[in-house]
Amino acid sequence: MHALIVHCHPEPRSFNAALKEVAREILQRLGYKVEVSDLYAEGFDPAEGPTHYMERTNTEVFTALTEQRHASELGSLPADVCREIERLARADLVVFQFPLWWHAQPAMLKGWMDRVFVYGGLYTGTYRYDRGHFRGKRAICCVTTGGPEATFAHNGRGGDIDLLLWPMHYSLYYMGYDVLPPFLAHGIQGGGPVYQAQDSFKAQLETYKAGWARRLETLEESTPIPFTGWNDWDERGVLKPGMEGYDYFIRAHP
Amino acid sequence: MHALIVHCHPEPRSFNAALKEVAREILQRLGYKVEVSDLYAEGFDPAEGPTHYMERTNTEVFTALTEQRHASELGSLPADVCREIERLARADLVVFQFPLWWHAQPAMLKGWMDRVFVYGGLYTGTYRYDRGHFRGKRAICCVTTGGPEATFAHNGRGGDIDLLLWPMHYSLYYMGYDVLPPFLAHGIQGGGPVYQAQDSFKAQLETYKAGWARRLETLEESTPIPFTGWNDWDERGVLKPGMEGYDYFIRAHP
Repeated sequence: MHALIVHCHPEPRSFNAALKEVAREILQRLGYKVEVSDLYAEGFDPAEGPTHYMERTNTEVFTALTEQRHASELGSLPADVCREIERLARADLVVFQFPLWWHAQPAMLKGWMDRVFVYGGLYTGTYRYDRGHFRGKRAICCVTTGGPEATFAHNGRGGDIDLLLWPMHYSLYYMGYDVLPPFLAHGIQGGGPVYQAQDSFKAQLETYKAGWARRLETLEESTPIPFTGWNDWDERGVLKPGMEGYDYFIRAHP
Repeated sequence: MHALIVHCHPEPRSFNAALKEVAREILQRLGYKVEVSDLYAEGFDPAEGPTHYMERTNTEVFTALTEQRHASELGSLPADVCREIERLARADLVVFQFPLWWHAQPAMLKGWMDRVFVYGGLYTGTYRYDRGHFRGKRAICCVTTGGPEATFAHNGRGGDIDLLLWPMHYSLYYMGYDVLPPFLAHGIQGGGPVYQAQDSFKAQLETYKAGWARRLETLEESTPIPFTGWNDWDERGVLKPGMEGYDYFIRAHP
């Protein structure tokens, strides 16, 4: 079994990095061969654009999907994208480790998705969702937030965390993954005075690390987030009659 | 009246760029002084991290919020961030022009938010949402998607567009903006053969351009997206009793 940890945080001594190390250690202990894509450490370029394509099929007007498909066919995808695709190809399990910044993943990780999930090579109009490239593989997000847990509940000021992670989770499902419910560590404000000094906060961090370890040790008990799929949609791409209960999040909300 | 267009697309001849030019032209005609932040053309760096902070308050462990606050106090924010904040300070209206990539804004625009909406300078724990820095100003997103309109309805395969744009809209509200309902142009697949050849598609693009122009000409008739605010939340940051109808999207869904 192979696992890939896609790690997105600029600071090697951050709590995100600590959680990444927990995952590496536990997954290795469970028998996984673990690789890490440390996006900041590797200097990943998150901006999709023409500079990445040396042999364009359309040199007049750049469109990402057109050039992604062309480069996939030609075997001329950028080296960093090839490396990430090879890592994904080996991985039965992918762990995404990141802080919630502005109600979503940081730009570095968003750009990894913009560039690595290439049209033509990894998906097409008919080769996606539950017919997607990575079907049969699992993905899970381990996310830190900067606010109290209650503020990320369905009625919380910070926004329903299920709703905030929905675009990312749906993207992973789009690529075919079974997306496991996320592991959340709330109230993480990084390396300021609070992080350094307060014993109660340090204890909370240890509790989160232990919780993440237990979660990884019991992944087999985890049921993937339910999404609708090709059998649920009509030819226009909308839910068939009788599926009304699924229109919230395009799935049954727990 | 000043307007800022934050434009995020790598190709100057894209349909996104055409919509940006529609906005520039119409807003100028309406009497706005218009500025454009062309993120790709200006080579904006979307990755928040330690390289942007020369005078760190904590040189041991980098945390974005800590260094953003410190640099705000010191007046040592990065030059590109200062430039964007000055543009925002002048703007009564901000237009965000971008394609939907992986169910969200492209990394370049996400990173603009990660870096420009600085903690300490532009928001704090008590200086946000309806008490936010830019209250009284308006923001609107003009978004292109790659699929048919029906697939972005509440029951669509592509995902409910209200839900996909929610994190970005909520971030703008967090900064104090009145967020106007977005203008959407569906089925835009950029500069491939379809774009070049089909008369019906060209006509559709002209219809969208005209629709966007009309929308901008009638912005005064547009009611901001309703969000809950400080008066609706208790001291734990959750909705007070009696606000149950607002737990979907933390607002009343239309």
